[in-house]
Amino acid sequence: MSTTPRRGRPGYDLESLLAIAVRVFNERGYEATSMEDLSRKLGITKSAIYHHVSSKDELLRLAVNRALDGLFTVAEEALAHDGRAIDRLERLVRGSVAVLVDQLPFVTLLLRVRGNTRVERAALGRRREFDRLVTELVKQAEAEGDVRPDVDPAITARLLFGMINSLIEWYRPRGGAGAESLADAVCTVAFTGLRA
Amino acid sequence: MSTTPRRGRPGYDLESLLAIAVRVFNERGYEATSMEDLSRKLGITKSAIYHHVSSKDELLRLAVNRALDGLFTVAEEALAHDGRAIDRLERLVRGSVAVLVDQLPFVTLLLRVRGNTRVERAALGRRREFDRLVTELVKQAEAEGDVRPDVDPAITARLLFGMINSLIEWYRPRGGAGAESLADAVCTVAFTGLRA
Repeated sequence: MSTTPRRGRPGYDLESLLAIAVRVFNERGYEATSMEDLSRKLGITKSAIYHHVSSKDELLRLAVNRALDGLFTVAEEALAHDGRAIDRLERLVRGSVAVLVDQLPFVTLLLRVRGNTRVERAALGRRREFDRLVTELVKQAEAEGDVRPDVDPAITARLLFGMINSLIEWYRPRGGAGAESLADAVCTVAFTGLRA
Repeated sequence: MSTTPRRGRPGYDLESLLAIAVRVFNERGYEATSMEDLSRKLGITKSAIYHHVSSKDELLRLAVNRALDGLFTVAEEALAHDGRAIDRLERLVRGSVAVLVDQLPFVTLLLRVRGNTRVERAALGRRREFDRLVTELVKQAEAEGDVRPDVDPAITARLLFGMINSLIEWYRPRGGAGAESLADAVCTVAFTGLRA
Protein backbone atom coordinates (compact mmCIF):
# COMPACT_ATOMS: atom_id res chain seq x y z
CA MET A 1 0.00 0.00 0.00
CA SER A 2 2.81 2.37 -0.91
CA THR A 3 1.68 5.93 -1.51
CA THR A 4 5.13 7.14 -2.61
CA PRO A 5 5.10 7.80 -6.34
CA ARG A 6 7.37 5.25 -7.96
CA ARG A 7 10.09 6.74 -10.14
CA GLY A 8 10.79 4.95 -13.45
CA ARG A 9 9.54 1.53 -14.57
CA PRO A 10 8.91 -1.09 -11.90
CA GLY A 11 12.02 -3.20 -11.47
CA TYR A 12 14.56 -0.49 -12.26
CA ASP A 13 15.88 2.15 -9.97
CA LEU A 14 19.01 4.05 -10.99
CA GLU A 15 21.21 1.49 -9.23
CA SER A 16 19.88 -1.59 -11.02
CA LEU A 17 19.76 0.26 -14.34
CA LEU A 18 23.40 1.28 -13.90
CA ALA A 19 24.44 -2.28 -13.01
CA ILE A 20 22.92 -3.67 -16.21
CA ALA A 21 24.24 -0.83 -18.37
CA VAL A 22 27.77 -1.44 -17.05
CA ARG A 23 27.47 -5.18 -17.82
CA VAL A 24 26.39 -4.40 -21.39
CA PHE A 25 29.17 -1.82 -21.85
CA ASN A 26 31.72 -4.39 -20.65
CA GLU A 27 30.37 -7.10 -22.96
CA ARG A 28 29.96 -5.05 -26.14
CA GLY A 29 32.18 -2.04 -25.56
CA TYR A 30 30.95 1.39 -24.48
CA GLU A 31 31.35 2.98 -27.93
CA ALA A 32 29.53 0.15 -29.67
CA THR A 33 26.52 0.25 -27.31
CA SER A 34 23.67 2.64 -28.15
CA MET A 35 20.84 3.79 -25.86
CA GLU A 36 18.66 1.74 -28.23
CA ASP A 37 20.70 -1.40 -27.37
CA LEU A 38 20.37 -0.62 -23.66
CA SER A 39 16.62 -0.09 -23.93
CA ARG A 40 16.24 -3.48 -25.68
CA LYS A 41 18.42 -5.19 -23.09
CA LEU A 42 16.49 -3.62 -20.21
CA GLY A 43 13.11 -4.21 -21.83
CA ILE A 44 12.09 -0.58 -21.25
CA THR A 45 11.75 2.43 -23.55
CA LYS A 46 14.55 4.92 -24.07
CA SER A 47 12.43 7.60 -22.38
CA ALA A 48 12.21 5.35 -19.30
CA ILE A 49 16.02 5.33 -19.24
CA TYR A 50 16.11 9.13 -19.68
CA HIS A 51 13.91 9.33 -16.62
CA HIS A 52 17.01 8.29 -14.64
CA VAL A 53 19.94 9.71 -16.63
CA SER A 54 20.37 12.44 -19.22
CA SER A 55 22.65 10.47 -21.57
CA LYS A 56 24.81 7.40 -22.15
CA ASP A 57 27.72 9.59 -21.08
CA GLU A 58 26.07 10.15 -17.69
CA LEU A 59 25.82 6.39 -17.18
CA LEU A 60 29.53 6.13 -17.95
CA ARG A 61 30.37 9.01 -15.61
CA LEU A 62 28.39 7.47 -12.73
CA ALA A 63 30.02 4.09 -13.33
CA VAL A 64 33.65 5.17 -13.59
CA ASN A 65 33.29 7.58 -10.67
CA ARG A 66 31.97 4.71 -8.52
CA ALA A 67 35.25 2.87 -9.22
CA LEU A 68 37.44 5.98 -8.84
CA ASP A 69 35.77 7.10 -5.60
CA GLY A 70 36.42 3.63 -4.15
CA LEU A 71 40.08 3.76 -5.11
CA PHE A 72 40.61 7.31 -3.80
CA THR A 73 38.90 6.43 -0.52
CA VAL A 74 41.33 3.57 0.12
CA ALA A 75 44.24 5.75 -0.98
CA GLU A 76 43.27 8.49 1.48
CA GLU A 77 42.80 5.96 4.28
CA ALA A 78 46.18 4.41 3.54
CA LEU A 79 47.98 7.77 3.32
CA ALA A 80 46.49 8.91 6.65
CA HIS A 81 48.47 6.25 8.53
CA ASP A 82 51.65 7.11 10.40
CA GLY A 83 54.72 4.96 10.23
CA ARG A 84 56.65 3.75 7.24
CA ALA A 85 55.70 4.49 3.64
CA ILE A 86 56.01 0.81 2.68
CA ASP A 87 53.26 -0.04 5.19
CA ARG A 88 51.03 2.67 3.71
CA LEU A 89 51.82 1.23 0.28
CA GLU A 90 50.78 -2.24 1.43
CA ARG A 91 47.52 -0.84 2.86
CA LEU A 92 46.87 0.90 -0.43
CA VAL A 93 47.52 -2.32 -2.37
CA ARG A 94 45.23 -4.38 -0.11
CA GLY A 95 42.51 -1.72 -0.23
CA SER A 96 42.72 -1.50 -4.01
CA VAL A 97 42.37 -5.27 -4.40
CA ALA A 98 39.27 -5.09 -2.17
CA VAL A 99 37.77 -2.33 -4.36
CA LEU A 100 38.45 -4.33 -7.53
CA VAL A 101 36.80 -7.41 -6.08
CA ASP A 102 33.82 -5.46 -4.66
CA GLN A 103 33.26 -3.25 -7.69
CA LEU A 104 34.58 -5.54 -10.42
CA PRO A 105 32.27 -4.45 -13.30
CA PHE A 106 32.76 -0.75 -12.50
CA VAL A 107 36.55 -1.02 -12.34
CA THR A 108 36.55 -3.15 -15.51
CA LEU A 109 34.74 -0.37 -17.35
CA LEU A 110 37.08 2.26 -15.89
CA LEU A 111 40.19 0.40 -17.00
CA ARG A 112 38.91 0.13 -20.57
CA VAL A 113 38.25 3.84 -20.98
CA ARG A 114 40.37 5.26 -23.78
CA GLY A 115 39.68 8.99 -23.73
CA ASN A 116 37.32 9.47 -26.67
CA THR A 117 34.90 11.74 -24.77
CA ARG A 118 35.04 14.44 -22.10
CA VAL A 119 33.82 11.97 -19.45
CA GLU A 120 36.50 9.47 -20.49
CA ARG A 121 39.22 12.11 -20.42
CA ALA A 122 38.13 13.20 -16.93
CA ALA A 123 38.34 9.57 -15.80
CA LEU A 124 41.82 9.21 -17.31
CA GLY A 125 42.83 12.40 -15.48
CA ARG A 126 41.73 10.94 -12.13
CA ARG A 127 43.54 7.68 -12.94
CA ARG A 128 46.75 9.63 -13.57
CA GLU A 129 46.27 11.45 -10.26
CA PHE A 130 45.93 8.06 -8.54
CA ASP A 131 49.10 6.79 -10.29
CA ARG A 132 50.95 9.88 -9.03
CA LEU A 133 49.89 9.10 -5.43
CA VAL A 134 51.20 5.55 -5.77
CA THR A 135 54.47 6.69 -7.39
CA GLU A 136 54.95 9.24 -4.60
CA LEU A 137 54.47 6.52 -1.98
CA VAL A 138 56.98 4.21 -3.72
CA LYS A 139 59.47 7.12 -3.79
CA GLN A 140 58.99 7.75 -0.06
CA ALA A 141 59.44 4.05 0.71
CA GLU A 142 62.60 4.07 -1.37
CA ALA A 143 63.90 7.15 0.48
CA GLU A 144 63.25 5.30 3.75
CA GLY A 145 65.31 2.37 2.45
CA ASP A 146 62.42 -0.09 2.28
CA VAL A 147 62.06 -0.30 -1.51
CA ARG A 148 64.94 -1.35 -3.74
CA PRO A 149 66.50 1.66 -5.44
CA ASP A 150 67.37 -0.11 -8.71
CA VAL A 151 63.92 0.20 -10.32
CA ASP A 152 62.39 3.56 -11.23
CA PRO A 153 59.53 4.39 -8.78
CA ALA A 154 57.11 5.27 -11.60
CA ILE A 155 57.78 1.93 -13.32
CA THR A 156 57.50 0.07 -10.00
CA ALA A 157 54.15 1.75 -9.33
CA ARG A 158 52.91 0.80 -12.78
CA LEU A 159 54.03 -2.82 -12.56
CA LEU A 160 52.41 -3.07 -9.12
CA PHE A 161 49.09 -1.78 -10.43
CA GLY A 162 49.52 -3.83 -13.60
CA MET A 163 49.37 -6.87 -11.35
CA ILE A 164 46.40 -5.57 -9.36
CA ASN A 165 44.43 -4.37 -12.37
CA SER A 166 44.91 -7.70 -14.15
CA LEU A 167 42.33 -9.06 -11.69
CA ILE A 168 39.61 -7.68 -13.96
CA GLU A 169 40.80 -10.08 -16.68
CA TRP A 170 40.86 -13.32 -14.73
CA TYR A 171 39.20 -12.98 -11.32
CA ARG A 172 35.73 -14.49 -11.13
CA PRO A 173 33.87 -13.92 -7.83
CA ARG A 174 32.11 -17.29 -7.77
CA GLY A 175 34.28 -20.20 -6.73
CA GLY A 176 37.41 -18.04 -6.77
CA ALA A 177 39.61 -16.89 -3.96
CA GLY A 178 38.30 -14.17 -1.62
CA ALA A 179 39.56 -10.60 -1.67
CA GLU A 180 41.84 -11.21 1.30
CA SER A 181 43.68 -14.22 -0.09
CA LEU A 182 44.04 -12.42 -3.44
CA ALA A 183 45.52 -9.43 -1.62
CA ASP A 184 47.92 -11.82 0.15
CA ALA A 185 49.01 -13.28 -3.18
CA VAL A 186 49.53 -9.83 -4.72
CA CYS A 187 51.52 -8.61 -1.69
CA THR A 188 53.65 -11.75 -1.57
CA VAL A 189 54.59 -11.59 -5.24
CA ALA A 190 54.96 -7.79 -5.33
CA PHE A 191 56.89 -7.23 -2.11
CA THR A 192 59.00 -10.38 -1.79
CA GLY A 193 58.99 -11.78 -5.34
CA LEU A 194 58.11 -15.22 -6.60
CA ARG A 195 61.60 -16.68 -6.17
CA ALA A 196 61.83 -19.03 -3.19
CA MET B 1 59.19 1.29 -65.60
CA SER B 2 57.67 -1.46 -63.52
CA THR B 3 55.78 -4.05 -65.50
CA THR B 4 54.50 -5.93 -62.46
CA PRO B 5 50.80 -5.21 -62.01
CA ARG B 6 50.40 -3.24 -58.82
CA ARG B 7 48.01 -4.76 -56.31
CA GLY B 8 45.73 -2.34 -54.42
CA ARG B 9 45.92 1.46 -54.31
CA PRO B 10 49.32 3.08 -54.39
CA GLY B 11 50.51 3.66 -50.86
CA TYR B 12 48.84 0.67 -49.25
CA ASP B 13 49.98 -2.89 -49.27
CA LEU B 14 48.38 -5.34 -46.84
CA GLU B 15 51.00 -4.51 -44.19
CA SER B 16 50.47 -0.76 -44.13
CA LEU B 17 46.69 -1.18 -44.37
CA LEU B 18 46.78 -3.55 -41.39
CA ALA B 19 48.95 -1.17 -39.35
CA ILE B 20 46.47 1.69 -39.82
CA ALA B 21 43.43 -0.52 -39.22
CA VAL B 22 44.94 -1.72 -35.93
CA ARG B 23 45.61 1.86 -34.86
CA VAL B 24 41.99 2.82 -35.58
CA PHE B 25 40.64 -0.29 -33.78
CA ASN B 26 42.75 0.59 -30.73
CA GLU B 27 41.58 4.20 -30.73
CA ARG B 28 37.86 3.68 -31.32
CA GLY B 29 37.33 0.04 -30.36
CA TYR B 30 37.03 -2.84 -32.84
CA GLU B 31 33.25 -3.19 -32.47
CA ALA B 32 32.66 0.52 -32.94
CA THR B 33 34.76 0.75 -36.12
CA SER B 34 33.05 0.02 -39.45
CA MET B 35 34.71 -0.71 -42.81
CA GLU B 36 33.23 2.66 -43.80
CA ASP B 37 35.23 4.33 -40.98
CA LEU B 38 38.37 2.53 -42.12
CA SER B 39 37.86 3.54 -45.73
CA ARG B 40 37.47 7.21 -44.68
CA LYS B 41 40.57 7.00 -42.46
CA LEU B 42 42.63 5.37 -45.22
CA GLY B 43 41.28 7.67 -47.93
CA ILE B 44 40.48 4.71 -50.18
CA THR B 45 37.22 3.02 -51.17
CA LYS B 46 35.86 0.01 -49.32
CA SER B 47 36.40 -2.12 -52.43
CA ALA B 48 40.08 -1.14 -52.36
CA ILE B 49 40.19 -2.54 -48.81
CA TYR B 50 38.38 -5.70 -49.93
CA HIS B 51 41.11 -6.12 -52.51
CA HIS B 52 43.38 -7.03 -49.57
CA VAL B 53 41.07 -8.65 -47.02
CA SER B 54 37.66 -10.29 -47.16
CA SER B 55 36.25 -8.62 -44.03
CA LYS B 56 36.88 -6.55 -40.91
CA ASP B 57 37.11 -9.89 -39.10
CA GLU B 58 40.01 -10.92 -41.31
CA LEU B 59 41.89 -7.74 -40.36
CA LEU B 60 41.32 -8.62 -36.70
CA ARG B 61 42.42 -12.22 -37.25
CA LEU B 62 45.65 -11.14 -39.00
CA ALA B 63 46.38 -8.61 -36.25
CA VAL B 64 45.78 -10.80 -33.20
CA ASN B 65 47.61 -13.73 -34.80
CA ARG B 66 50.62 -11.50 -35.37
CA ALA B 67 50.73 -10.89 -31.62
CA LEU B 68 49.96 -14.49 -30.66
CA ASP B 69 52.52 -15.96 -33.08
CA GLY B 70 55.16 -13.69 -31.54
CA LEU B 71 54.27 -14.82 -28.02
CA PHE B 72 54.19 -18.52 -28.92
CA THR B 73 57.53 -18.24 -30.71
CA VAL B 74 59.22 -16.87 -27.59
CA ALA B 75 57.45 -19.47 -25.45
CA GLU B 76 58.71 -22.31 -27.65
CA GLU B 77 62.23 -20.89 -27.66
CA ALA B 78 62.16 -20.55 -23.87
CA LEU B 79 60.75 -24.04 -23.30
CA ALA B 80 63.39 -25.62 -25.56
CA HIS B 81 66.15 -24.68 -23.11
CA ASP B 82 67.62 -27.23 -20.72
CA GLY B 83 68.30 -26.46 -17.11
CA ARG B 84 66.00 -25.11 -14.45
CA ALA B 85 62.37 -24.17 -15.07
CA ILE B 86 62.85 -20.78 -13.40
CA ASP B 87 65.44 -19.89 -16.03
CA ARG B 88 63.04 -20.91 -18.80
CA LEU B 89 60.40 -18.78 -17.08
CA GLU B 90 62.72 -15.79 -17.03
CA ARG B 91 63.50 -16.28 -20.75
CA LEU B 92 59.78 -16.43 -21.45
CA VAL B 93 59.18 -13.22 -19.46
CA ARG B 94 62.00 -11.36 -21.25
CA GLY B 95 60.87 -12.63 -24.65
CA SER B 96 57.28 -11.60 -23.96
CA VAL B 97 58.31 -8.09 -22.95
CA ALA B 98 60.27 -7.86 -26.23
CA VAL B 99 57.19 -8.95 -28.22
CA LEU B 100 55.00 -6.39 -26.43
CA VAL B 101 57.47 -3.61 -27.15
CA ASP B 102 58.01 -4.69 -30.79
CA GLN B 103 54.36 -5.37 -31.60
CA LEU B 104 52.71 -2.93 -29.21
CA PRO B 105 49.59 -2.06 -31.30
CA PHE B 106 48.97 -5.71 -32.21
CA VAL B 107 49.28 -6.93 -28.62
CA THR B 108 47.13 -4.01 -27.42
CA LEU B 109 44.35 -5.13 -29.77
CA LEU B 110 44.78 -8.76 -28.70
CA LEU B 111 44.49 -7.93 -25.01
CA ARG B 112 41.25 -6.01 -25.56
CA VAL B 113 39.49 -8.84 -27.38
CA ARG B 114 36.38 -9.90 -25.47
CA GLY B 115 35.04 -12.92 -27.37
CA ASN B 116 32.11 -11.43 -29.27
CA THR B 117 32.99 -13.15 -32.59
CA ARG B 118 34.47 -16.45 -33.77
CA VAL B 119 37.81 -14.75 -34.47
CA GLU B 120 37.84 -13.23 -30.98
CA ARG B 121 36.95 -16.54 -29.34
CA ALA B 122 39.77 -18.27 -31.25
CA ALA B 123 42.18 -15.59 -29.99
CA LEU B 124 40.96 -16.04 -26.41
CA GLY B 125 41.49 -19.79 -26.82
CA ARG B 126 45.13 -19.26 -27.86
CA ARG B 127 45.62 -16.84 -24.95
CA ARG B 128 44.35 -19.49 -22.53
CA GLU B 129 46.74 -22.00 -24.09
CA PHE B 130 49.59 -19.53 -23.52
CA ASP B 131 48.48 -19.01 -19.90
CA ARG B 132 48.56 -22.79 -19.40
CA LEU B 133 52.16 -22.94 -20.67
CA VAL B 134 53.17 -20.24 -18.19
CA THR B 135 51.30 -21.88 -15.30
CA GLU B 136 52.95 -25.22 -16.13
CA LEU B 137 56.38 -23.58 -16.05
CA VAL B 138 55.65 -21.91 -12.69
CA LYS B 139 54.56 -25.33 -11.34
CA GLN B 140 57.78 -26.96 -12.55
CA ALA B 141 59.86 -24.18 -11.00
CA GLU B 142 57.97 -24.64 -7.76
CA ALA B 143 58.57 -28.43 -7.87
CA GLU B 144 62.28 -27.70 -8.34
CA GLY B 145 62.18 -25.50 -5.23
CA ASP B 146 62.90 -22.23 -7.07
CA VAL B 147 59.45 -20.64 -6.76
CA ARG B 148 57.82 -20.02 -3.40
CA PRO B 149 55.14 -22.64 -2.72
CA ASP B 150 52.77 -20.34 -0.81
CA VAL B 151 51.13 -18.76 -3.88
CA ASP B 152 49.02 -20.79 -6.31
CA PRO B 153 50.94 -21.28 -9.60
CA ALA B 154 47.96 -20.21 -11.74
CA ILE B 155 47.61 -16.98 -9.72
CA THR B 156 51.37 -16.39 -9.86
CA ALA B 157 51.31 -16.85 -13.65
CA ARG B 158 48.45 -14.39 -13.96
CA LEU B 159 50.01 -11.76 -11.73
CA LEU B 160 53.26 -12.11 -13.65
CA PHE B 161 51.53 -11.54 -16.98
CA GLY B 162 49.35 -8.86 -15.42
CA MET B 163 52.56 -6.94 -14.86
CA ILE B 164 53.88 -7.63 -18.37
CA ASN B 165 50.60 -6.92 -20.14
CA SER B 166 50.20 -3.62 -18.31
CA LEU B 167 52.94 -2.32 -20.61
CA ILE B 168 50.28 -1.74 -23.27
CA GLU B 169 48.66 0.82 -20.94
CA TRP B 170 51.67 2.91 -20.10
CA TYR B 171 54.69 2.08 -22.26
CA ARG B 172 55.39 4.60 -24.98
CA PRO B 173 58.21 3.71 -27.41
CA ARG B 174 59.49 7.26 -27.91
CA GLY B 175 61.56 8.61 -25.07
CA GLY B 176 60.76 5.60 -22.90
CA ALA B 177 62.99 2.83 -21.64
CA GLY B 178 64.11 0.19 -24.14
CA ALA B 179 62.79 -3.36 -24.18
CA GLU B 180 65.79 -4.68 -22.29
CA SER B 181 65.65 -2.28 -19.36
CA LEU B 182 61.87 -2.84 -19.13
CA ALA B 183 62.48 -6.59 -19.04
CA ASP B 184 65.07 -6.02 -16.28
CA ALA B 185 62.51 -4.02 -14.25
CA VAL B 186 59.80 -6.67 -14.71
CA CYS B 187 62.19 -9.50 -13.73
CA THR B 188 63.51 -7.61 -10.71
CA VAL B 189 60.06 -6.85 -9.33
CA ALA B 190 58.56 -10.24 -10.26
CA PHE B 191 61.38 -12.52 -9.15
CA THR B 192 62.88 -10.70 -6.18
CA GLY B 193 60.11 -8.30 -5.15
CA LEU B 194 60.20 -4.56 -4.62
CA ARG B 195 61.19 -4.72 -0.95
CA ALA B 196 64.82 -3.78 -0.40
